[in-house]
Amino acid sequence: MKRIRTIEAGAHRGERVRVAGWLHSLRQLGGVSFLVIRDGWGTIQAVAETAPELAPLQEQEAGVESVISVEGLVVAMPQAPGGIELHDLRIEVITPVTEAPPVPLNKPRLSAHITTLLDHAVVTNRHPSRRAILRLGAGAMAGFRSTLTARNFTEIQTPKIVASATESGANVFQLDYFGRAAYLAQSPQFYKQIMVGVFERVFEVGPVFRAEPHDTTRHINEYVSLDVESGFIENHFTVMALLRDVIAGTLNEFRERYTPELDLLRVQLPEVPAQIPHIHFSEAQELIFRQHKVDVRGEPDLSPQDERWLGEWARQEFGSDFLFVTGYPMVKRPFYTHPDPERPAYSNSFDLLFRGTELVTGGQRLHRYADYLAALEKANLPLEPFESYLEAFRYGMPPHGGFAIGLERLLMQLTGVPNIRLATTFPRDLARLTP
Amino acid sequence: MKRIRTIEAGAHRGERVRVAGWLHSLRQLGGVSFLVIRDGWGTIQAVAETAPELAPLQEQEAGVESVISVEGLVVAMPQAPGGIELHDLRIEVITPVTEAPPVPLNKPRLSAHITTLLDHAVVTNRHPSRRAILRLGAGAMAGFRSTLTARNFTEIQTPKIVASATESGANVFQLDYFGRAAYLAQSPQFYKQIMVGVFERVFEVGPVFRAEPHDTTRHINEYVSLDVESGFIENHFTVMALLRDVIAGTLNEFRERYTPELDLLRVQLPEVPAQIPHIHFSEAQELIFRQHKVDVRGEPDLSPQDERWLGEWARQEFGSDFLFVTGYPMVKRPFYTHPDPERPAYSNSFDLLFRGTELVTGGQRLHRYADYLAALEKANLPLEPFESYLEAFRYGMPPHGGFAIGLERLLMQLTGVPNIRLATTFPRDLARLTP
Repeated sequence: MKRIRTIEAGAHRGERVRVAGWLHSLRQLGGVSFLVIRDGWGTIQAVAETAPELAPLQEQEAGVESVISVEGLVVAMPQAPGGIELHDLRIEVITPVTEAPPVPLNKPRLSAHITTLLDHAVVTNRHPSRRAILRLGAGAMAGFRSTLTARNFTEIQTPKIVASATESGANVFQLDYFGRAAYLAQSPQFYKQIMVGVFERVFEVGPVFRAEPHDTTRHINEYVSLDVESGFIENHFTVMALLRDVIAGTLNEFRERYTPELDLLRVQLPEVPAQIPHIHFSEAQELIFRQHKVDVRGEPDLSPQDERWLGEWARQEFGSDFLFVTGYPMVKRPFYTHPDPERPAYSNSFDLLFRGTELVTGGQRLHRYADYLAALEKANLPLEPFESYLEAFRYGMPPHGGFAIGLERLLMQLTGVPNIRLATTFPRDLARLTP
Repeated sequence: MKRIRTIEAGAHRGERVRVAGWLHSLRQLGGVSFLVIRDGWGTIQAVAETAPELAPLQEQEAGVESVISVEGLVVAMPQAPGGIELHDLRIEVITPVTEAPPVPLNKPRLSAHITTLLDHAVVTNRHPSRRAILRLGAGAMAGFRSTLTARNFTEIQTPKIVASATESGANVFQLDYFGRAAYLAQSPQFYKQIMVGVFERVFEVGPVFRAEPHDTTRHINEYVSLDVESGFIENHFTVMALLRDVIAGTLNEFRERYTPELDLLRVQLPEVPAQIPHIHFSEAQELIFRQHKVDVRGEPDLSPQDERWLGEWARQEFGSDFLFVTGYPMVKRPFYTHPDPERPAYSNSFDLLFRGTELVTGGQRLHRYADYLAALEKANLPLEPFESYLEAFRYGMPPHGGFAIGLERLLMQLTGVPNIRLATTFPRDLARLTP
């Protein structure tokens, strides 16, 4: 009999069907056994009322996580999870498992310590709650891509092995490239800008590598970056409008195709306003001084406390979970940042805050060759490592800008997990290189 | 005036429109100047009949590759490229370029030596022919993903920094991970298998890194791998049917959305038969012996000449550009390969040949823990580096298999470029780390 997915069984009441998956749990109650079968998409309960039905499990001592096939009659049963059960079972053991898993996977909550969860991620990622977060990652990538391709963006894949630690000079991983030193790309920034010269509008979904020696709940050393760069913009406000649409498109993708995951995780998705409110960096500092009597005016950056205050203000003032802070001081932004033509100490850049925490950074970049030469000189950086990058500007680039969304940080903030590692399939941190 | 894309101008005959892009070429003929403007999607010709129209270019000495905005009247002109031209121009220079590019971009063919093309890829990727190949790469990723998501596959992103050089032990790049040795993943093989335990059906689009010291027209050291792994298969024939659909879906994506690129490159897409013919490895050797009097029976692998002969045979016998060769000897396949239960010296694996050259490799994998222990022992491999990988099998895995398509090699074979580097955005090889 052709196999169906567990989530399809509801459409087959009164029929015999076959499902297959992992034996998620097995309970005996009176003379009756309740099996839950988990496949790649959901679970279904199956009820064995006679001993011969269960015999194939017992013969092979097959316990939880055994891979089994179960044929049975689909019966409406309001009190069963999902409202249906399988009865009159024919069980076949495909791969028996006799050992208990390192962490029980059939409790609603995974209660083990995070170190145990991560050490055994190979198995704990099977838990419905872990799986739901990771599947939302697939949804975020899909929503990001579909929003951008609908706007004529072209997907690119750029090199991850690079010749020099150009962007910041620090915090890069070094590798041996046929006897030469090379580095892992800490972002596709330069390449995505270069490719604006080819396709105008580009995006990339790929790994980035940060050798930052931070051991926090918000840092991992390899993550998935959702990168965008667009040519022929007016200024950073063009980029902010695009980012608003990308976030809204991603949340729509979740609403349309990921409700089982959202429900299981009890995630309430935020509303994205048609226009996300924005405040200039200098006004934000004035606001904090007026409202909280803390004078951060003249500071070159916002502290986490400043961001929290601004998040509260956006909620009170505009009913918005999102707030753009624009015009960060040039001194705190990378050399390729475009200054505000009116107030050159401030930049045409922005952060997007979500509930008072930075979610996305972006802005307008320099596009004139001469401006790059001046910016590198000002930053005391040599020209030679930037030669290829500069070639793009030497031969004509339009005004352009973009942003980067950290996939795992987005998932962490939307699902509310307390540690970014729990929003990551197999995290890499200071201490962790496996699994 | 709102900008439109050059490829949209045909729908605006008789109207004034504004396009923007790069000054692709500028010719004077009699008193008339012919400009071609290239934007991210196409080109359009603009004709300046009076000196004041051209003045903005001349004032800034703006030559080819300058970024300009051109407003004009859309006029039907059968002999112009695309059948339309812009007349009565208002030109604005956005970014002037006064220097000639390192390679002329406005000839139909890029005639420079491949080294020059790659050294200046930042600029030469702008050439319409280079851009068309790279854009087909975006199409291949899109077709791959849409075919698989329609079949309930989940997209994953797995770590590229790994703890041990496990899969083959050789040809991996080593890096310094906070004072420890780590390696770049040479494939997501282990992780995609592990994730079959979570999602059943998974795919990944991401970079893989091969430290192979080969200097050929078919090797690069970092490429984009389109990886698939699927659970609950019958055997490798289930995987082959899926691969057939993925290839057909990708070519359909090209036909539906990438005809300008196919036309420009004069690519004739192959037909994918509803069922791609297949031949067993041992029968293929017999066939070669019968047809060509060359006795390769007993050889553990097929030579490039053998593959060419088989490709010719598939064309003559079945009219097919594609041929599956199944059942490669176990000795030539990695340890996780599932043997043919009937003839255990042969494997449940396959290669897909396209016009006599290997395009994709795949197969069924082992799924029982005990089989892995035996296979590692037989291969003289230690257990310890595989501990996390083995944990997946210890706790129940279904029969599964998959395949991997090299994006650049696919593009090379479909477009007929003579060197894989020309199907790569910014190639990495023995000698090349930039741009």
